[in-house]
Amino acid sequence: MTITITAFERSPDRGRGLARDMRVRWALEEAGQHYEVRLVSFEALKQPAHLALQPFGQIPTFEEGDLTLFESGAIVLHIAERHGGLLPRDANGRARAIAWMFAALNTVEPPIFDHSLARILERDEPWYEHRLQSLEKSIRKRLDSLSRHLGDADWLDGAFSAGDLLMVSVLLRLKSAKIFDDYPSLAAYVARGEARPAYQRAFAAQLAVFQAASAG
Amino acid sequence: MTITITAFERSPDRGRGLARDMRVRWALEEAGQHYEVRLVSFEALKQPAHLALQPFGQIPTFEEGDLTLFESGAIVLHIAERHGGLLPRDANGRARAIAWMFAALNTVEPPIFDHSLARILERDEPWYEHRLQSLEKSIRKRLDSLSRHLGDADWLDGAFSAGDLLMVSVLLRLKSAKIFDDYPSLAAYVARGEARPAYQRAFAAQLAVFQAASAG
Repeated sequence: MTITITAFERSPDRGRGLARDMRVRWALEEAGQHYEVRLVSFEALKQPAHLALQPFGQIPTFEEGDLTLFESGAIVLHIAERHGGLLPRDANGRARAIAWMFAALNTVEPPIFDHSLARILERDEPWYEHRLQSLEKSIRKRLDSLSRHLGDADWLDGAFSAGDLLMVSVLLRLKSAKIFDDYPSLAAYVARGEARPAYQRAFAAQLAVFQAASAG
Repeated sequence: MTITITAFERSPDRGRGLARDMRVRWALEEAGQHYEVRLVSFEALKQPAHLALQPFGQIPTFEEGDLTLFESGAIVLHIAERHGGLLPRDANGRARAIAWMFAALNTVEPPIFDHSLARILERDEPWYEHRLQSLEKSIRKRLDSLSRHLGDADWLDGAFSAGDLLMVSVLLRLKSAKIFDDYPSLAAYVARGEARPAYQRAFAAQLAVFQAASAG
């Protein structure tokens, strides 16, 4: 059965791999699964045809046979459960890897995402400086915990897992932020993720979409 | 094997059931599992003994035999996978219920949580009203999508699932907010969740902790 995912026709990150289809592409590459991509315009996101697949009008979606899924975390977990390479085989290790998936999305991502958003949307607001400081404080709290846990290990809990895939994806948004200079072990962790051949194939594929749209 | 979870010794929500142990208690009650609770003070959250269980210094944790888990979403999923009543039996329905779990935590919760936090921490700031409006706009966007999807159904996708458990848990934080008056179908959805006997047992158990701490 063919796997089809959706991605932005023109990603607002200009091909930097920060849109959430990147996580799903990366997971599919780690799992060695071929996939097709349907590009969606910003206008089409709000149309009934897309909302039937994704109630919140976002990307990515995942379709395979009669299954449609949304939420990048759920899609990555679905891929990880069906194919090798993204979850440990022992039950406890598997449960802990899933805990890191939720930690990436529910504990680490929110302040990082808000920080990116504030830098775009709240630049002219009276609270901008104060808000940035407050968000940076929240981010540092998370990064302190994460770097203490990681120590000098390569990955969060044994071998590379879907938990690392999502955590690296979430941290990538900080790559150009000054704050990351204070966390060299996390910067190295992200670089280990980016160095994986599956990441590189996924990154090249999403960049090609942006380049084609820009040339068109 | 005994299941042990952690909860706040004194919950900052004063027993309103908004702390994240409530979700885990509710899931354990739905699954008919007995559990014990270890109460943790705010000081103890930052100590090595707790950080070894929960790298971010939060509650809840989950211990059973040689397995330790953190992140309420991961714990609820672990319980749902091992016991009946929280996930559909067919593979596609199961994957979709998990998508709603991630949607609750990664798409709907962040602006609702920020709104609660702003109401506590930014009340005296000169930009307070403006900031609330901006957060309410983000929340409304999510609630519009959610109520459109729910329509006149009882639950998000067929029978009650762990996806509903987390979505109701996330929406409960809005119960006292005026914004919720505009979404009667979501208010009714939350009320259906609260009416479940498992919810009520879990709620009573966390309230008893707060009452005992206040009396002590």
